[in-house]
Amino acid sequence: MKFKRMKQVNVYPGMTVDDLLISMRDGGFTCRKVALATGLLEEMILDNNCTVILGLAGALIPGGMRNIIRTMIEKDIVKCIVTTGANISHDLLETSGGSHYHGSEHLDDEKLKEIEMSRIFSTLITYESFVKFETMIQKILETMQDEKMSSRQFIFELGRHVDDPLSFVRAAFLKKVPIFSPSFSDSMLGVQSWLYSQNVPLFIDVLKDHTEFSNIIFEADRIGAMFLGGGVPKHFIMNGSQLHNGLSYAIQITMDRPEHGGVSGASVKEAVSWGKMALKGKWIDIMSDVTLVLPLMISGVLSRLSKRNG
Amino acid sequence: MKFKRMKQVNVYPGMTVDDLLISMRDGGFTCRKVALATGLLEEMILDNNCTVILGLAGALIPGGMRNIIRTMIEKDIVKCIVTTGANISHDLLETSGGSHYHGSEHLDDEKLKEIEMSRIFSTLITYESFVKFETMIQKILETMQDEKMSSRQFIFELGRHVDDPLSFVRAAFLKKVPIFSPSFSDSMLGVQSWLYSQNVPLFIDVLKDHTEFSNIIFEADRIGAMFLGGGVPKHFIMNGSQLHNGLSYAIQITMDRPEHGGVSGASVKEAVSWGKMALKGKWIDIMSDVTLVLPLMISGVLSRLSKRNG
Amino acid sequence: MKFKRMKQVNVYPGMTVDDLLISMRDGGFTCRKVALATGLLEEMILDNNCTVILGLAGALIPGGMRNIIRTMIEKDIVKCIVTTGANISHDLLETSGGSHYHGSEHLDDEKLKEIEMSRIFSTLITYESFVKFETMIQKILETMQDEKMSSRQFIFELGRHVDDPLSFVRAAFLKKVPIFSPSFSDSMLGVQSWLYSQNVPLFIDVLKDHTEFSNIIFEADRIGAMFLGGGVPKHFIMNGSQLHNGLSYAIQITMDRPEHGGVSGASVKEAVSWGKMALKGKWIDIMSDVTLVLPLMISGVLSRLSKRNG
Amino acid sequence: MKFKRMKQVNVYPGMTVDDLLISMRDGGFTCRKVALATGLLEEMILDNNCTVILGLAGALIPGGMRNIIRTMIEKDIVKCIVTTGANISHDLLETSGGSHYHGSEHLDDEKLKEIEMSRIFSTLITYESFVKFETMIQKILETMQDEKMSSRQFIFELGRHVDDPLSFVRAAFLKKVPIFSPSFSDSMLGVQSWLYSQNVPLFIDVLKDHTEFSNIIFEADRIGAMFLGGGVPKHFIMNGSQLHNGLSYAIQITMDRPEHGGVSGASVKEAVSWGKMALKGKWIDIMSDVTLVLPLMISGVLSRLSKRNG
Repeated sequence: MKFKRMKQVNVYPGMTVDDLLISMRDGGFTCRKVALATGLLEEMILDNNCTVILGLAGALIPGGMRNIIRTMIEKDIVKCIVTTGANISHDLLETSGGSHYHGSEHLDDEKLKEIEMSRIFSTLITYESFVKFETMIQKILETMQDEKMSSRQFIFELGRHVDDPLSFVRAAFLKKVPIFSPSFSDSMLGVQSWLYSQNVPLFIDVLKDHTEFSNIIFEADRIGAMFLGGGVPKHFIMNGSQLHNGLSYAIQITMDRPEHGGVSGASVKEAVSWGKMALKGKWIDIMSDVTLVLPLMISGVLSRLSKRNG
Repeated sequence: MKFKRMKQVNVYPGMTVDDLLISMRDGGFTCRKVALATGLLEEMILDNNCTVILGLAGALIPGGMRNIIRTMIEKDIVKCIVTTGANISHDLLETSGGSHYHGSEHLDDEKLKEIEMSRIFSTLITYESFVKFETMIQKILETMQDEKMSSRQFIFELGRHVDDPLSFVRAAFLKKVPIFSPSFSDSMLGVQSWLYSQNVPLFIDVLKDHTEFSNIIFEADRIGAMFLGGGVPKHFIMNGSQLHNGLSYAIQITMDRPEHGGVSGASVKEAVSWGKMALKGKWIDIMSDVTLVLPLMISGVLSRLSKRNG
Repeated sequence: MKFKRMKQVNVYPGMTVDDLLISMRDGGFTCRKVALATGLLEEMILDNNCTVILGLAGALIPGGMRNIIRTMIEKDIVKCIVTTGANISHDLLETSGGSHYHGSEHLDDEKLKEIEMSRIFSTLITYESFVKFETMIQKILETMQDEKMSSRQFIFELGRHVDDPLSFVRAAFLKKVPIFSPSFSDSMLGVQSWLYSQNVPLFIDVLKDHTEFSNIIFEADRIGAMFLGGGVPKHFIMNGSQLHNGLSYAIQITMDRPEHGGVSGASVKEAVSWGKMALKGKWIDIMSDVTLVLPLMISGVLSRLSKRNG
Repeated sequence: MKFKRMKQVNVYPGMTVDDLLISMRDGGFTCRKVALATGLLEEMILDNNCTVILGLAGALIPGGMRNIIRTMIEKDIVKCIVTTGANISHDLLETSGGSHYHGSEHLDDEKLKEIEMSRIFSTLITYESFVKFETMIQKILETMQDEKMSSRQFIFELGRHVDDPLSFVRAAFLKKVPIFSPSFSDSMLGVQSWLYSQNVPLFIDVLKDHTEFSNIIFEADRIGAMFLGGGVPKHFIMNGSQLHNGLSYAIQITMDRPEHGGVSGASVKEAVSWGKMALKGKWIDIMSDVTLVLPLMISGVLSRLSKRNG
């Protein structure tokens, strides 16, 4: 076994994010993993035979990641997305005129309730934002046909009827990037869909998601996954990968731990035993909040792609 | 503000679990929280006007919790369950003749793949177990009618066709305890359902779950929730509780952290701002692996209920 | 590789703690690790050629573990202790008439300051308790001779002058169990020692601790360590074990993670590469709050030792 | 209560680290905290009446932070350091010709021992490096006088005899930045000091550290602390701050959790109850690996200071 000597990270005034990521390769632990993951993501994108699938869990938009996710779609970094319903809901909440606010995890929750603000750790949403979201969604639902849509089709239709250049659901519609959300019913979007279905038939066929997703898997040559958080998205993507003898590439960013056996915190390494991660595949586990890693990585990748393209 | 002096925990030979839980009230941090949570769960059960709802996430059966969950159903501790598809799948995997095995998180995942064993942290499942599960599920699915079942109805029907006194899905069927799994399609059960539906129409209407769950909420006087892990189950239950001006009681056991904004690691306190936890409600957050806390708590509660009943 | 089938944990009314620990072997993840660790601790104690060394870090007495630590000394479970200064300080704070109080991590810290209470997560200490501690320590220090004591000698002398049957420092003195605290100067005890030394010469020779500790290591046949938390105690014990070709047994209980490279969260497995954990040694890592695991384990061990002894 | 609307983070090709940090203010959770902490550190440095004290715990040099720590000294960002002995040891290990190597946390620890490499999570050190360190230290110790040095004086003397422009201990010597290490005896440096003291008297008076540190505290107008990890350094600094009615500024970066009561994972907020954090003080808790946050923050701060200075 041969090992490379560590040079240690260097920082200086005016350095670019890409300079920093390159220097972070000379460090250890998390900073080196983020540096290497940026290189791996670059490799996945440049591999013309690799379909990059993005898993989105957690509260990414209350975390500020909306534009970055949309950029990943617009710049062809990802070709398919699997997400919890929350991310769709928060994206469309912003589209509806609602908003997220900077707060603190130390605020008095009773007082927040009094002034009609809901807390997601250090981020706040006004009750009023929820009302704007609900009003907008009900209008969009009226345009839906009564047919058995997969969650993928359903979200595609939502994207059709949303005219917001900042929305990532809209960007995915325009770019024809499929968004799957098998667990969407457990979200504000799901509740609104249910309320609507009390008056007008609406059936979302979550089993149909498997048909559509497996087609994507079968048509792919190699598959690379990027898991932002774990949950249903990670499991769904990992599950599909079994049809393909495992992922060729995987980057996982989570704060969840593995010791209680949950899939979210499981090391990607474990997936090798399931055939969900290819034996010759390349993968990196990063133990961190997505909001800190994603801006770094995507900023770096955009810089590198930009240099390549002139 | 008046505070009670800490006496410190005492242990001695031959003490019962309930003795230990009582002594743990005299400690601090997690041991005191577990002691108080046991008392709170007892209070929830003895409150005749409280509907106790159990949220199940994570890999609880690979963690050894199958019999305890079934006992909670059989002994009327819980009146409703919301779960990820994984727990249903692992329960029925055991019913089908498959099994979980004691392993280690340090095993070589490549070797495990060679000998056809999948790893869930320190627990293993044989590929053969999956085949037994798949065979059994396909047979049961043949008995299903082609109608729009909610996931609750679907799981109830699975319970009808499973003749295994060790299965908690079966126990829930016999006890008429509804089990909801809005995200079931992302599980081995979901995949088998999909495969079946390629030949025979099968529609699971996840929006219908909201109808049935909100009825339970509306009919309830007070609601108490016990979250084992977070994920979709916690969010689904919390969401429903808004129809009821919030939970009256909540016990949360998780190893997830709050700093990335995800719902799984969020303190129950945050839910007060959403109206999902009643202002006058009682709640306890425990930061621990469920597999360590649940046996202690349920053992203690069974002892106390037993003493009350003679 | 041959693996044992998992039977799943069973709980029932009136079970003893030892019954529960035995049933927990049939579970997975943390509950099984705690069950196995209890067996390993029993093995360490029954091994007449094993010197059991206890590492104490974290706020164990604000966590309620004072009596249990003292019991481990009184019942000859441990033969040597390495601790942070905090545990000595909190033990003697109780001896001085001060106390720890049950509080909550959600209290208003500004109000607590106003009413002169300091918060350690969910535990509180009155400023008055600190004053009692300081008064008592100053009196005891007056009895010290001006010689270069190791921290071990210093703590032994503290134990000589403390007449409190509840104190574990006292119990260690009576049982001649050496307590090392190389980092003691960073604690309330250290500050009091320093204040005293402003008027009367007092020198604590922390290098001398190495002499005394390595003698214990050299005289030992096999060494078993139990790390409650990590920090200086874990590192000090691990370091000494290198003189002995590594620990024969190790049990680690911590909530710290390994990804940032700190020793506290490092898996015991890593120590094999350093020669600090013997290749043929037996070890278990438990990811949990000590306050939840220790009462269970020691209660179980006391029951088993009691059965053996009649 | 008035709250600011979240704009969401933006990334684009070629952005500088400072551009990114500024955009990260528009995000939430950890990325916003890092952005705000960078601003707070800048405020601490520009406050001419603020003495910035740095607490160093964990394995920062195996994490690649050596040059950054040295830069913080050379650029007058920090005026005083409190560290575990490990950071001194690893810095001088590099000076001696030893080195850290890039490895992986998945390596076989038994094989590593065979090829004489020690593992710190994903970083490796050769046994040979330790020998080089030991040889160099023994030479330097021969220059020491037999007097009661505080750990601060001891490390200052080490810096005098080290001629390595890359060493942060050397840089601190040249800049007269005091480095305290009350727990130094628990480190490779401590072991070497002990071995030396077996032949030649050497007394390190750790109580004297309190005298010197409290002088720094008394002479300061305002104090700002930056805690990289927790442990003895954090506690020592927090303790000294009580003499000063609490810190005016504090930035904490750790991956440790608060639920077990340990000081390392305790929120800075808790310190308000102890009078260790001033009521009007400004502080930020960041839950992350230092190796990911520190390069970002210091890069940003250097850019901003550079712009100010022309």
